[in-house]
Amino acid sequence: MNGVLIPIGGAEDKSGQGNILASFVDLCGDQARVAIIPAASSMPQQVGEQYRTLFTQLGAAVEVISIETRAEANDSARAAVLAGCTGVFLSGGDQVKLVSLLGGTQVADALQQLFKRGGIIAGTSAGASALSQHMIAFGRSGGAPAQRMVQLAPGLGLAQGVIIDQHFRQRDRIGRLMTAVAYNPVMIGIGLDENTALVIDPGGRCEVIGTGSVTVIDGSRLSYTNIHTAKAHDPITVSGAYIHFLTAGCGYDLYRRAAWFPDLAAESNR
Amino acid sequence: MNGVLIPIGGAEDKSGQGNILASFVDLCGDQARVAIIPAASSMPQQVGEQYRTLFTQLGAAVEVISIETRAEANDSARAAVLAGCTGVFLSGGDQVKLVSLLGGTQVADALQQLFKRGGIIAGTSAGASALSQHMIAFGRSGGAPAQRMVQLAPGLGLAQGVIIDQHFRQRDRIGRLMTAVAYNPVMIGIGLDENTALVIDPGGRCEVIGTGSVTVIDGSRLSYTNIHTAKAHDPITVSGAYIHFLTAGCGYDLYRRAAWFPDLAAESNR
Repeated sequence: MNGVLIPIGGAEDKSGQGNILASFVDLCGDQARVAIIPAASSMPQQVGEQYRTLFTQLGAAVEVISIETRAEANDSARAAVLAGCTGVFLSGGDQVKLVSLLGGTQVADALQQLFKRGGIIAGTSAGASALSQHMIAFGRSGGAPAQRMVQLAPGLGLAQGVIIDQHFRQRDRIGRLMTAVAYNPVMIGIGLDENTALVIDPGGRCEVIGTGSVTVIDGSRLSYTNIHTAKAHDPITVSGAYIHFLTAGCGYDLYRRAAWFPDLAAESNR
Repeated sequence: MNGVLIPIGGAEDKSGQGNILASFVDLCGDQARVAIIPAASSMPQQVGEQYRTLFTQLGAAVEVISIETRAEANDSARAAVLAGCTGVFLSGGDQVKLVSLLGGTQVADALQQLFKRGGIIAGTSAGASALSQHMIAFGRSGGAPAQRMVQLAPGLGLAQGVIIDQHFRQRDRIGRLMTAVAYNPVMIGIGLDENTALVIDPGGRCEVIGTGSVTVIDGSRLSYTNIHTAKAHDPITVSGAYIHFLTAGCGYDLYRRAAWFPDLAAESNR
């Protein structure tokens, strides 16, 4: 059975117990063994050591896997480290750097295997974006959807059927996420604020943790979009997107496309 | 068991027996019942009737499913037509129009179901691009990869692990396909020339038919790319892509990433 995914919107609280990082380590089990992959970062060594300190304080055994070349991503010793871990943490930085380094390599295979055997995979900022099958590579800020506002690329493919964006409220990214969903309204867009995360269980049930909001855009009820006729950087029409702003304790079922709330037994179903 | 996919590079021979369209109808069986979906086209009615005439002459029973709104794509009667068919043909036009109309609707679900029960799904030009999970939405021509050269979007998701491009030699599209693969080198890029198609069987074994070439780009052996550092429209470095130009009778195994040839028993394995 697949494991648990924890995309985090970046800038997560690093003060210790009771935060998103502690929840990740808890999920990794009593014998938590965490691999940190800081490859997305432009300062991978510092970032790796920072998270090593944090996760060690939280009680995990920690390995930092340094990957700066595709040859290193194809190193069987590095892949073997993942085979011994219960969880993986992908740092922030640049998701295109991360995926273009890892794609098609032994380390990427080992990450898939770890997930398939029930491992916990968390990623913050760029690391969150990279979890999804259809990854936002880069884009422009702004509140309204427009042509060429978002560049998609194949991600690591662990989170299916969703497009994950981060620093969401802080960087005004609802326009680009709406554009991404309009291309193919079967997708569910997930926008994670800073210090906010979604815990996605193997059955597609998600729970919000942290201090901000998770914005969920369900495209399947769209009645109309003109995305195929918009030229250059024209604004695009999108009508009938179904949107939820969810806070800590709320949840969302990716298969049933329904939200739930801590103070209400009934679901807001589609 | 999944069915067979036939992406066609556009401008296919419409003269009758012995061509790509005849191969499609043959694969649809003795009791071929073909649904034509001309929704990608800007002249859907004319295009639908043209293919209706062709497939009728080739011996198939034919239905044209007209879809110009998302409400029509959510019409259960239209979805029910697909349930009675052995094959589907997606016309050319604009793949973003096709996918933004169908994504998340009953017709898209019925297409998935038809494929899962062994149906034959062919698409030409825009219809070919739309078959893949990671779809080229649009892009620029040119022989060398560059940043922002290709815009990807979630496609219909029938062809996994590949990115399909069309009118490939005729519109000089190798640069944009290479750019798409460089984002995540686990992908296999497939560039279809006009009047050329790939017949992809449920086991991922593909055979080339038609008069041109199929270009296959296997990114998994990439030694280096700087796609994450290239700015604006800069050219990008891509080193170690493994490329095949395959003609009629040649084949390619998407899982083993190996080509084979009609006059050679041995495979060119990776």
